[in-house]
Amino acid sequence: MEIISDKLIIKQGTIYTEEQTLQSGFVQIDDGKITKVSKSTEHLSSKDYQLITLPEGYSIIPGMIDLHIHGVNGADTMDATREALDIMASTLPKEGTTSFLATTITEDINEIKTSLVNAGEYINSFQSEGNAEVLGIHLEGPFIHKGKAGAQPVQHIADPDTQLFKQLESLSNHHIKLVTLAPELPGGSELVDYLKNKNIISSIAHSEASYSQVLEAIDHGLTHVTHLFNQMTGLHHRDPGIVGSAFLRDELMVEIIADGIHVSPEIVKVAYKQITDERMMLITDAMRAKWLEDGSYDLGGQMVTVTNGKALLDENTLAGSVLKMIDAFKNIQTFTGCSMESAIKMACENPAKQLNVFDRKGSIANGKDADLVILDENKDVYMTICKGKIAFARGDDNLENH
Amino acid sequence: MEIISDKLIIKQGTIYTEEQTLQSGFVQIDDGKITKVSKSTEHLSSKDYQLITLPEGYSIIPGMIDLHIHGVNGADTMDATREALDIMASTLPKEGTTSFLATTITEDINEIKTSLVNAGEYINSFQSEGNAEVLGIHLEGPFIHKGKAGAQPVQHIADPDTQLFKQLESLSNHHIKLVTLAPELPGGSELVDYLKNKNIISSIAHSEASYSQVLEAIDHGLTHVTHLFNQMTGLHHRDPGIVGSAFLRDELMVEIIADGIHVSPEIVKVAYKQITDERMMLITDAMRAKWLEDGSYDLGGQMVTVTNGKALLDENTLAGSVLKMIDAFKNIQTFTGCSMESAIKMACENPAKQLNVFDRKGSIANGKDADLVILDENKDVYMTICKGKIAFARGDDNLENH
Repeated sequence: MEIISDKLIIKQGTIYTEEQTLQSGFVQIDDGKITKVSKSTEHLSSKDYQLITLPEGYSIIPGMIDLHIHGVNGADTMDATREALDIMASTLPKEGTTSFLATTITEDINEIKTSLVNAGEYINSFQSEGNAEVLGIHLEGPFIHKGKAGAQPVQHIADPDTQLFKQLESLSNHHIKLVTLAPELPGGSELVDYLKNKNIISSIAHSEASYSQVLEAIDHGLTHVTHLFNQMTGLHHRDPGIVGSAFLRDELMVEIIADGIHVSPEIVKVAYKQITDERMMLITDAMRAKWLEDGSYDLGGQMVTVTNGKALLDENTLAGSVLKMIDAFKNIQTFTGCSMESAIKMACENPAKQLNVFDRKGSIANGKDADLVILDENKDVYMTICKGKIAFARGDDNLENH
Repeated sequence: MEIISDKLIIKQGTIYTEEQTLQSGFVQIDDGKITKVSKSTEHLSSKDYQLITLPEGYSIIPGMIDLHIHGVNGADTMDATREALDIMASTLPKEGTTSFLATTITEDINEIKTSLVNAGEYINSFQSEGNAEVLGIHLEGPFIHKGKAGAQPVQHIADPDTQLFKQLESLSNHHIKLVTLAPELPGGSELVDYLKNKNIISSIAHSEASYSQVLEAIDHGLTHVTHLFNQMTGLHHRDPGIVGSAFLRDELMVEIIADGIHVSPEIVKVAYKQITDERMMLITDAMRAKWLEDGSYDLGGQMVTVTNGKALLDENTLAGSVLKMIDAFKNIQTFTGCSMESAIKMACENPAKQLNVFDRKGSIANGKDADLVILDENKDVYMTICKGKIAFARGDDNLENH
């Protein structure tokens, strides 16, 4: 199928709108925006509009927003090329992602700087229609704790440094939206203060903070937890740690890698019960091997081996994931028994709100960007629309296309 | 005050009955049983009935049931004397406990046997009116894991042994109701099978079981978790462990020591959210120093130092508690924000159901034992009634006593 018009009506199927779930109806798109959402299938048909009629069992959900993705399909944010970001932005719609934060890793500071310059320029000047949108940059490291490095190259880890961050911020054309750091380190509070002042999200992981240190960081402006459970202080019964703070503190929005590998399905269920869909967010933390075959791939200058969906730096260290957003979206429902609506909150609405773009992203509502994902009866991605343009359509075609 | 009659009416105050919470009303007691619960304060006054009228702000709750208590007021189950159990049974009403399981500890097997003989005889022949009732015996160890001994003397720990257990059972006059063990050890499954067959509760703690080993034990008949979080595998994000099984598995009733020392208040809140008042139970795990001054006391042949509410075997090992049931009852409300009704489920109803004595204990309802606790406006114990007899009354007297 080809979408040829800027005017499009998608009808029938279950429509998960911001306000309610419609068992039928239509979504109308004009010039990249959602212009009408109706529960009636009667619409002012006009030959200006291309009409897509969905089969029984299909559904329309908002485009998913991945706040934490390093790479996909051979490309990585750290490649620092326009091509790499193009590959990411054009591949991610296959898994239902319509916008994301290009995520860096701890590396030689000059590599980080080059990547930030590249991503900043890309965001300003090179985004393409019909691709996922790069909403900004997630700076993961280098301001983290060496004791919880995980797959972040330990030799490049540094204490939080607000002056250095200001340089990075400037080089990125002010597109850094989220910083994963260890606030308990020297300079941590100062950096969190600065980020708060700049409306940049401070997030904790790769950190050995105690519960009381997390509370202190919250006082300074910490509002986010990166990949819950991975590379952080766990839930000890006499110190709740970072995991406990994610469970208990409503100030924190919480990322989780719902691949069943980084965190066991049972523990995802425990976390969901604590955090609920009010504060949990699905991310992939994927590296370049995603959508490619098993093999060896670079991550932050290190060789990572991918086998059966597991990316390992060595026998004991997971190195990012090859998780797809649509699988995170399906897994969270399987692991927790949550509803579609709840999964949509965690994959679309919460990340949009956390990034402060909920006025234009994260739900199906009048006036918002036409970022939509059509799922088939198995909740697989049938089609992804980015700002009204088809970004991905599966080869087979059950759709009536008028 | 002295209660002189077998016929008693307690009126006014908030009454927490099995069915509902009455803002006023009365409870009538005849011959040790509750014979009427009414929301009206109009009753057939008869001079046969002694009448107690409660002041504003007082409440009546069911007697609390402590499934896990070693000792109090200088006495310990392992003392193996009638006097020791008398002291326990007569002291515990001060804290609102009206029945309990006398709990043993890992020790030389002959010491355990002597204690079981003593407790069995006591239960059969020596219980006194106006004392808390010994409902049976909780055998904690010796069938536990040396790696999670805690304050259980490691030299006396043994693998589960069904033949030996049968001897112990017989010596106790079949009054063992609950066994804390490590089901993953050799012989564990066989013992759990045997206990299930005998309607004796199998409980897990002092164990290194993985999550899958807990699931296997549940298949064999495990239904209980002893002192959640203490001396067991914690919640790891890739193996939920015993803590995770307590969170996730509805087959398990779960003890917690809500003193804020064994488990931090924040973690009690996390556990409550997971387990809810449907499955959580308040216990004390108290040792002989409770209700006594700080100092050094014996536990299982070891010297334990009690300072500021903390009983320590050494710098890093907690050795039982000096927690009172009424404080556990108040703490759980403070730590979690739960209601009085919820706290009553955890202190009274759930333990009664788990022990299979809910037909006569655990709630305020017609026909049940008149085990009642009167709380003042600060939720401190004002009076405790065991089977219709006053077991404790505080020195001061705000009550109208006709």
